[in-house]
Amino acid sequence: MTSQERPPALAIADFIHLLDEHMPQVRAGGFSVVDMGWGSCTMRVAASERTSRAGGTISGPTMFALADLALYGAVLSQVGNVPLAVTSDMNIHFLRKPPLRPLLGEARILKPGKRLAYGEVLIRSEDDPVPVAHATGTYAIPVG
Amino acid sequence: MTSQERPPALAIADFIHLLDEHMPQVRAGGFSVVDMGWGSCTMRVAASERTSRAGGTISGPTMFALADLALYGAVLSQVGNVPLAVTSDMNIHFLRKPPLRPLLGEARILKPGKRLAYGEVLIRSEDDPVPVAHATGTYAIPVG
Amino acid sequence: MTSQERPPALAIADFIHLLDEHMPQVRAGGFSVVDMGWGSCTMRVAASERTSRAGGTISGPTMFALADLALYGAVLSQVGNVPLAVTSDMNIHFLRKPPLRPLLGEARILKPGKRLAYGEVLIRSEDDPVPVAHATGTYAIPVG
Amino acid sequence: MTSQERPPALAIADFIHLLDEHMPQVRAGGFSVVDMGWGSCTMRVAASERTSRAGGTISGPTMFALADLALYGAVLSQVGNVPLAVTSDMNIHFLRKPPLRPLLGEARILKPGKRLAYGEVLIRSEDDPVPVAHATGTYAIPVG
Repeated sequence: MTSQERPPALAIADFIHLLDEHMPQVRAGGFSVVDMGWGSCTMRVAASERTSRAGGTISGPTMFALADLALYGAVLSQVGNVPLAVTSDMNIHFLRKPPLRPLLGEARILKPGKRLAYGEVLIRSEDDPVPVAHATGTYAIPVG
Repeated sequence: MTSQERPPALAIADFIHLLDEHMPQVRAGGFSVVDMGWGSCTMRVAASERTSRAGGTISGPTMFALADLALYGAVLSQVGNVPLAVTSDMNIHFLRKPPLRPLLGEARILKPGKRLAYGEVLIRSEDDPVPVAHATGTYAIPVG
Repeated sequence: MTSQERPPALAIADFIHLLDEHMPQVRAGGFSVVDMGWGSCTMRVAASERTSRAGGTISGPTMFALADLALYGAVLSQVGNVPLAVTSDMNIHFLRKPPLRPLLGEARILKPGKRLAYGEVLIRSEDDPVPVAHATGTYAIPVG
Repeated sequence: MTSQERPPALAIADFIHLLDEHMPQVRAGGFSVVDMGWGSCTMRVAASERTSRAGGTISGPTMFALADLALYGAVLSQVGNVPLAVTSDMNIHFLRKPPLRPLLGEARILKPGKRLAYGEVLIRSEDDPVPVAHATGTYAIPVG
């Protein structure tokens, strides 16, 4: 799930710039880009009052947003700077209650495509390899 | 999808109180409870900078959060005041780009259960019956 | 979920003919078409040794096949005679163990489309309105 | 996705015996067990008239059945001889049209559990590493 040999079609700095320009709520929400490779992207979300939920855990919608962003990065790593790529479907299973600590979302593309790309995202605490959630989803890529 | 004859096991006022107490980010995020019936719940989210996304539309994670909350309400409408009920899986399809206007999430339970409850949520603009997203999901209910 | 006013773009007799010609295993497997409307289709599967599973119930793959076929019919009811329409994703939840009796799959389209169509399928025993499974899915429609 | 060091809780020969005894349609349908490890299982399905579909490809329900069986094996590899474990939900994405050749379904458990186990299945042609479908799902395990 780390960067592979082929460089991404969108450099990590350019992805960060794209998010800041088009989705300022990403940074404001405590999300950050950790890594990008060809067909892969790792995002991180900080634990905060905003992302927490009853019972001292991270909320489901926060994990969904993390999966969605990581998959977005993985898609753009292959198609380049296409901000208007949009999620078409997402399936998420919550496997364990994560502690109130930073989470990583590690996305990789299983089926690249010019119009539709499909991938999966493993979510885990930053300091623990055991997955707390797993998502799969499809992005639709607008064609110029 | 409107309230049915049997009254909900959790009154709408008690559900609002539960959300305010256990998930203050719900109200802060612009979400509100519109209706509850036995096995059904309608939630609303306002359109704001926080919920918007590139292209003048509502973000996917906002729609996920809306679906998740509406399903939560529908589950509690049958099992009562159980704040620690948690999403175990959720599948969402984004069908059309919604305009930047308030959205409703209308949830109904298809399989009630003491330990697991399953239902679906239709998401649409407040002033338009055409669905913009559709979700299905399971909640796990802790047993005392 | 019954036929609606607008007639289907593919008549029920033509759908049966299409299945017999392109997918003879459908009839051989005990599946039959019950009803078609604009955006809806009901399929039936008989209970047999082939469709049964340990514990005196209908197997999961049989219910998946029923959902897939009913959704196929609902898609063709709007796009007409396009045998090469294919499932692109399907999500199914098994809600209750059905008895070893005929099942109905009632599909309806939630999002028609020229390239992608999305819908849901409720599966129940022929003589019982309570759902035993629920599926949602997307079909990809080849463009001429 | 190959067998790991810890031996499976159900030997491959015992899994084959269980299938033959409780689900004779598995062998009759052309499915066979290829490999089992702790938390993993690979199943194979032959290409035949029964599994084919219009356009010279393997049918979606055949791929679903393959995923379901491989995940069943992966679950039993951790919980042992529990024939009545049942699928509770399954999500499948069809990524490419497979040719009419044997398929492998490679399952691995992402979340073991005494009551619920979750895993994923990669489906590919026997002679090609590129995935043609990807599934995730949950099994419910009856407790004695």
